[in-house]
Amino acid sequence: MTDDAKTPVSIIGLGLMGTALARAFLTAGHPTTVWNRTAAKADALVADGARLAPTIGDALGSGGVTILCLTDYPAVRELLGGAELAGTTLLNLTSGDSAQARETATWAEKQGARYLDGAIMAVPSAIGTDEAVILLSGPRPDFEIGALGTISHLGEDPGLASLYDVAGLAMMWSILNAWLQGTAMLKTAGIDAATYAPFAQQIAVGVAGWLPGYAEQVDAGAFPAEVSALETDARAMAHLVEESEALGVNAELPKLLKAMADRAIAAGHGGEQYPVLIEEFSRPGQ
Amino acid sequence: MTDDAKTPVSIIGLGLMGTALARAFLTAGHPTTVWNRTAAKADALVADGARLAPTIGDALGSGGVTILCLTDYPAVRELLGGAELAGTTLLNLTSGDSAQARETATWAEKQGARYLDGAIMAVPSAIGTDEAVILLSGPRPDFEIGALGTISHLGEDPGLASLYDVAGLAMMWSILNAWLQGTAMLKTAGIDAATYAPFAQQIAVGVAGWLPGYAEQVDAGAFPAEVSALETDARAMAHLVEESEALGVNAELPKLLKAMADRAIAAGHGGEQYPVLIEEFSRPGQ
Repeated sequence: MTDDAKTPVSIIGLGLMGTALARAFLTAGHPTTVWNRTAAKADALVADGARLAPTIGDALGSGGVTILCLTDYPAVRELLGGAELAGTTLLNLTSGDSAQARETATWAEKQGARYLDGAIMAVPSAIGTDEAVILLSGPRPDFEIGALGTISHLGEDPGLASLYDVAGLAMMWSILNAWLQGTAMLKTAGIDAATYAPFAQQIAVGVAGWLPGYAEQVDAGAFPAEVSALETDARAMAHLVEESEALGVNAELPKLLKAMADRAIAAGHGGEQYPVLIEEFSRPGQ
Repeated sequence: MTDDAKTPVSIIGLGLMGTALARAFLTAGHPTTVWNRTAAKADALVADGARLAPTIGDALGSGGVTILCLTDYPAVRELLGGAELAGTTLLNLTSGDSAQARETATWAEKQGARYLDGAIMAVPSAIGTDEAVILLSGPRPDFEIGALGTISHLGEDPGLASLYDVAGLAMMWSILNAWLQGTAMLKTAGIDAATYAPFAQQIAVGVAGWLPGYAEQVDAGAFPAEVSALETDARAMAHLVEESEALGVNAELPKLLKAMADRAIAAGHGGEQYPVLIEEFSRPGQ
């Protein structure tokens, strides 16, 4: 059952993610048009009320927002290359980098389209729940797609969604790796992962709470050692490296932590606070 | 004003941290004895009610717990080498690794001492607040030192306090580095650190919440791809590396993330879930 008060949506690309998006819109009552190169992939969605567009042009003409969920940016450009884009609103949720997003925005806007870029921070099975975070960047959205999850508009620069996405993933993997490092170390003492995990969780939540305060130091470009000095951290990092090696677990993460700090200390920042490392992170490394 | 119902404490070593410990005990009303190689360092504490022990033996004989807060483990062994330890309770808060803690425990117990090892997860200025986490390992404590902060007894193995300490520090630095990586990337798009920090914080808190569930996979030694497969992560890691390089920011952290995942995939785990990387973290790396 569709609800004409809801933004009409067209979904182009019915892979796992595109299909999940279309289904969430159908469930929420959006008039939903779908298109896929292999039309048979739309059968189940059509049975549930989606309209199959016979052509890309037809999908683009549905009057609402057209959501692109394809393999990569070249596939987007190839597919839309011959279509009339003037007056359309495009939301490109295809995975890519910030440069591709900006180039595609420029290309689409030249043809009269309103172009937003986006990134989906969720697996297909989470789409339609609050846990699915969808990042948008470009012009402020003039459509309502809250049926997909938690929508966050980051700003006018169309590259932002992709940048926040990979930055968030770097945080995700870094926490998982730090937890695995600790888990491997504790396993050598017979401590199981379930015993250690709540401790790791507590540390992570605590440290996450420091970030807004540390960000003030980065923005001010001044790093007074209010809590501790980098050279104190570096001494403890040496312990972490030695302990990892003595236990026979992987020491690459500990060594990278120490190498970054050592470089900042060599650059004269040993008496400053940890966020001074922004200088190392802001330039190509070794 | 001391309170005889409170555990008598002796603090051996009055560096910044030892002094902070002694002051917290005095504030809380513990009968507090102090000893330092350079006795003048005790003057301010004595003025506030601490008793200066003329000898190590005197400090050890105060009847409660003797807390060691020295430069390193060799300094502990040297200082206690000639003293009568039988019947004493020692809490060693000196920084060191798990092997040193275990060796020192064996040595002290042979001489009839009750020995606990500990690690202070706090800077001196936080001692005496709930934020100061003190990790203990060894026999269950028969003294009350809650005046120092939040006390956590981890188990009988005297090496545990040191292991949890460095594991927690690895988590701390990893979160800070991942945040700096993202901050450096977003800065290239003109986004300031204060704008990005709450997003990074939200991701970190969310991912921290997954750890207990992922720990079950580690303990079971089975890693079904319930949410996503490692090979999907590795593709996104390649994007992170490429994006970092294209932006001209440091790419060493992204490359290490990808290298660990690639190795697990090469070992045949591409279809399993992220915690399967415990196998890589549990062995010496490259």
